[in-house]
Amino acid sequence: MKKKAVIALGGNALIKKGQKGTIYEQFANTRRSTKSIVKMIKKGWDVVITHGNGPQVGAILLQNKVAKDLTPAMPLGICVAESEGLIGYMIQQCLSNALKKEQIEKPVIALITQVIVDQDDPSLSHPTKPIGPYYNEDEAIQLRKEGFQMTCQPRGWRMVVPSPDPKQIVEGESIRKMLDEGIIVIASGGGGMPVVEKENGGLDGLEAVIDKDLAAERLAEAVEAELLLILTDVEKVYLHYGTPKQMTLDKITLKELQNYYETNHFPPGSMGPKILAAIRFLESGGKKVIVANIEKGWEAIQGETGTLITRD
Amino acid sequence: MKKKAVIALGGNALIKKGQKGTIYEQFANTRRSTKSIVKMIKKGWDVVITHGNGPQVGAILLQNKVAKDLTPAMPLGICVAESEGLIGYMIQQCLSNALKKEQIEKPVIALITQVIVDQDDPSLSHPTKPIGPYYNEDEAIQLRKEGFQMTCQPRGWRMVVPSPDPKQIVEGESIRKMLDEGIIVIASGGGGMPVVEKENGGLDGLEAVIDKDLAAERLAEAVEAELLLILTDVEKVYLHYGTPKQMTLDKITLKELQNYYETNHFPPGSMGPKILAAIRFLESGGKKVIVANIEKGWEAIQGETGTLITRD
Repeated sequence: MKKKAVIALGGNALIKKGQKGTIYEQFANTRRSTKSIVKMIKKGWDVVITHGNGPQVGAILLQNKVAKDLTPAMPLGICVAESEGLIGYMIQQCLSNALKKEQIEKPVIALITQVIVDQDDPSLSHPTKPIGPYYNEDEAIQLRKEGFQMTCQPRGWRMVVPSPDPKQIVEGESIRKMLDEGIIVIASGGGGMPVVEKENGGLDGLEAVIDKDLAAERLAEAVEAELLLILTDVEKVYLHYGTPKQMTLDKITLKELQNYYETNHFPPGSMGPKILAAIRFLESGGKKVIVANIEKGWEAIQGETGTLITRD
Repeated sequence: MKKKAVIALGGNALIKKGQKGTIYEQFANTRRSTKSIVKMIKKGWDVVITHGNGPQVGAILLQNKVAKDLTPAMPLGICVAESEGLIGYMIQQCLSNALKKEQIEKPVIALITQVIVDQDDPSLSHPTKPIGPYYNEDEAIQLRKEGFQMTCQPRGWRMVVPSPDPKQIVEGESIRKMLDEGIIVIASGGGGMPVVEKENGGLDGLEAVIDKDLAAERLAEAVEAELLLILTDVEKVYLHYGTPKQMTLDKITLKELQNYYETNHFPPGSMGPKILAAIRFLESGGKKVIVANIEKGWEAIQGETGTLITRD
């Protein structure tokens, strides 16, 4: 009996805090983060893998900025596509190498993914997500003239972009078919390239960043996964995180979680989108969601760690 | 009756000579270069598209170089993967938009591609292909210390990398399956990421650049295409190109072409690999190869322009 899972690897999985992000560091981290995935595949899971790209797309934006007088800077959407190439290649190679060591011959394909958002998503007119390098005031003024929204932070000025809600994975049906053909798919990296549908049905790119866990959830719907496995840098989901009242959630139902979510227990920038993704997935027919530490995905599936969220 | 083709778009297709390569220029050029492809799909062809990446990977290498004190520079193979993301996204979006205008609903998938080369390929110990930005002498000395081969050209120093012969497309079988599922595939961009097989069967990336036409040929073998369509910036294949003796080849057989190839009629850097790709493809069972101008692919299939190369 084939079981399908979408696995979302946190943005810090491939460049750890304090690391510079050399290619050696990134490959070493990637190898580590594929261990649980190999165990799942060994046990018969069909998997789609998605990943964050925060540090990588930040580096690419910075490179584009610094070299802009020598070669035209690419817009954010294109930088996301570049980061999907970079990270997709690493995961693809590390995972298939690890599978070969276990005598498992399964193809691993990394693809470029577009994600449809609403033309009238409120976030498009109210960008709030700071991204990329820091700028000085003169640069910030210039960028504003070029049409970018800028925000002042303690370390300098940063671009702020919209983070619209993902509605549909453009390549979703193809990914499902690939999965049915026994292919392991890496998709929707960094939340995917945000696009809007034009009146003629065509697609058009946007200067925005989609939350990767919310995109992972749409991916899980598209491939009809039974499990959404969100791997991050905390061990479990907590209430009152980081306060004396901190409380661990080991197992929780959709209804209980909805309750906590609606009473603002999870901060918008971090655990919030993960919880919203979990709620959406279970509401749309998914069986379970697990939130766990990136190094312990397999143990979490065994019920040894992580937070398990079920329909009832 | 389904006919399969691999279409190779020349490296200058997306950034024309004299252009800086802004994203607007690249999208406009991409839209233009997809016109023939749309006509082929309309007429029932199943297609795999591959493309050059010279200007784009040059720009990415330059950005990496200029920003290297701020964020770690990525090696060449990674830059190729980034360029596959960038170009794959553009072709994917422009092509599916153009198809929708014609009421054709076919998925277009761009994927990251690895290409196996021989560990003992002679080019690996004799790099000859100049790539990326120009360096001054001090930088060149430093890069030599870091293990790079450098060559002095009139405009400055450049890195030279091996250009090993592609043997096999790692994702070839998956691409064939996707094609059978009615998916239009973009693969092996920039010749793909060169990898060698390690003793344990795993793959390892290389600092090298694979010729995109030779990689396109391996792709055409892998998907059992009947046509390899090489689109470039000349109208046809010529003998004695650019000399008073210049002679146009409209239609030629494999045997005649082999003859010219073996007597060194085609320069190694430009038409040579295209001709070698044509010879290999027909020898391996392909039906025909067409070399034509990027704007006239469809006309060339109709026999109105280009050079047609057949088995006999």
